[in-house]
Amino acid sequence: MKAKFIVVEGLEGAGKTTAIQTVVDFLRESGVTSVTQTREPGGTPIAEKLRAIFKQEHDHETLQDMSELFLIYAARVQLVETVIKPSLLKGTWVIGDRHDLSAQAYQGGGRGIDRHVLTQLRQMALKNFSPDLTLYLDIDPKLGLERARGRGELDRIEKMDLGFFERTRECYMDFARHDQSIRTIDAGQSLQQVQADIRRVLNDWFSSL
Amino acid sequence: MKAKFIVVEGLEGAGKTTAIQTVVDFLRESGVTSVTQTREPGGTPIAEKLRAIFKQEHDHETLQDMSELFLIYAARVQLVETVIKPSLLKGTWVIGDRHDLSAQAYQGGGRGIDRHVLTQLRQMALKNFSPDLTLYLDIDPKLGLERARGRGELDRIEKMDLGFFERTRECYMDFARHDQSIRTIDAGQSLQQVQADIRRVLNDWFSSL
Repeated sequence: MKAKFIVVEGLEGAGKTTAIQTVVDFLRESGVTSVTQTREPGGTPIAEKLRAIFKQEHDHETLQDMSELFLIYAARVQLVETVIKPSLLKGTWVIGDRHDLSAQAYQGGGRGIDRHVLTQLRQMALKNFSPDLTLYLDIDPKLGLERARGRGELDRIEKMDLGFFERTRECYMDFARHDQSIRTIDAGQSLQQVQADIRRVLNDWFSSL
Repeated sequence: MKAKFIVVEGLEGAGKTTAIQTVVDFLRESGVTSVTQTREPGGTPIAEKLRAIFKQEHDHETLQDMSELFLIYAARVQLVETVIKPSLLKGTWVIGDRHDLSAQAYQGGGRGIDRHVLTQLRQMALKNFSPDLTLYLDIDPKLGLERARGRGELDRIEKMDLGFFERTRECYMDFARHDQSIRTIDAGQSLQQVQADIRRVLNDWFSSL
C-alpha cells in the first residue's frame, strides 16, 4: 500500500495532540511501522523560524493579515517539498498536526480573507497535493479555549477573541460538509469516546484502501 | 505636493546605494526635506527577520522558489502597510532600495516563476499600490557581479550563476520598455555620468509633477 498523508485539524484545545497519538497507535496496530509526524506552520528549520514569527507577539508592530498568510504558505511549501513529499515517496506515512485546511479556516473564516484569494494561493503553493484523510476535531470554541488557556501562556493566535474562533469553526464545518476526505469528530465528548470515534473512522477508511 | 514613492532597482553591483544618495540630495536641493529610506525585503522588525531567512544559506535545506516568493511578499506587505503608506500619508517621501519590480525580475526572470502567478500575487499583496517613479540601474551582470564580489562575503542570491542574473536583467529591461514609470539609467558608465543621468531624469520628472 502506498504511504498516506493523514492530517489532524481543529481549534485550540480540541485535543489534536492526543488524537495524533491515537492515529499513530492505530497505524502501528494495523502494521504501518514507518510513520513520521509534522506540524504546521513549521516542521523544517526554515519553517520553524517562520512559525516563531507567526506565533510571537511583536512589539510596536502588527503582523498584517496578508503577511501572516504569505508566511504560512512559505512555511507550507517548505515542509511539503522537503519533508512530506519525500517521506511519502520513500514509503513513510505522514501524520500532520494541521495543514492547508487551517489556512482556509483561520485566515478565510477567522480573518475574513477572500476565499478566492485562498484558493489561488493554495493552487500556487500546492498544485494538486492534498491529504488522503483529514480528521477534523470539532469543538465549541468556548470549551476549547478554556482547555487551551489551562495550558499556560497564550500565543498571538490564542489571544484572539471568541468571534474569531467561531468564524474559524464555521469555516471548518463548511469545508467538512463539502469534502469527503474530511471526517468530523465530536471533540466535546469524553476522551474515551473521542478516541473510540477516531478509531472507528480510521478503521472504516483503512479497510476501504 | 503630495509625497511620492521613488524606488531604485537593479542587479547586484549596479550602484543602488550611491544612486539613492543622489536621489536624496536632489530632493533636498529641490526643497523636499521630509524623506525616509526603506529597503526590501526588510525595513520593519518583522520584515528584517524575513530578510535574514531570505539572505542566508541554510544548512541541509534549500529554500524553495515558491517559499522564497511568499516570504518576499510577506515582508513587502508588512513594509508597505506599516511604513510606506503611513509615511506617504503624513507627507514624508519614501526612497526604496528595491520594491516589487525585484520580485518580477528575480523570481519571474531569474527563477522562471510564471508571470501570471506573479501578477496574481502582486494584486493580492499590493492592490493598486505602486511607486511613482522607479530608477532602473541597468548593468551587465558580469560587471555588476565583479563589483559586488569585491565587497566581500556573498549572500545566497549573490552566489547564483551568471545565467540567473542575465535572465533577471532581461526581465528588468522588458518591464522598463512597457512601463512609463520606470526610467532606465546606464549604470555601466562612470560614476559621474551615472549621477548626471539620474539628476537629469529626476529633474524631468520633478518638473512634470
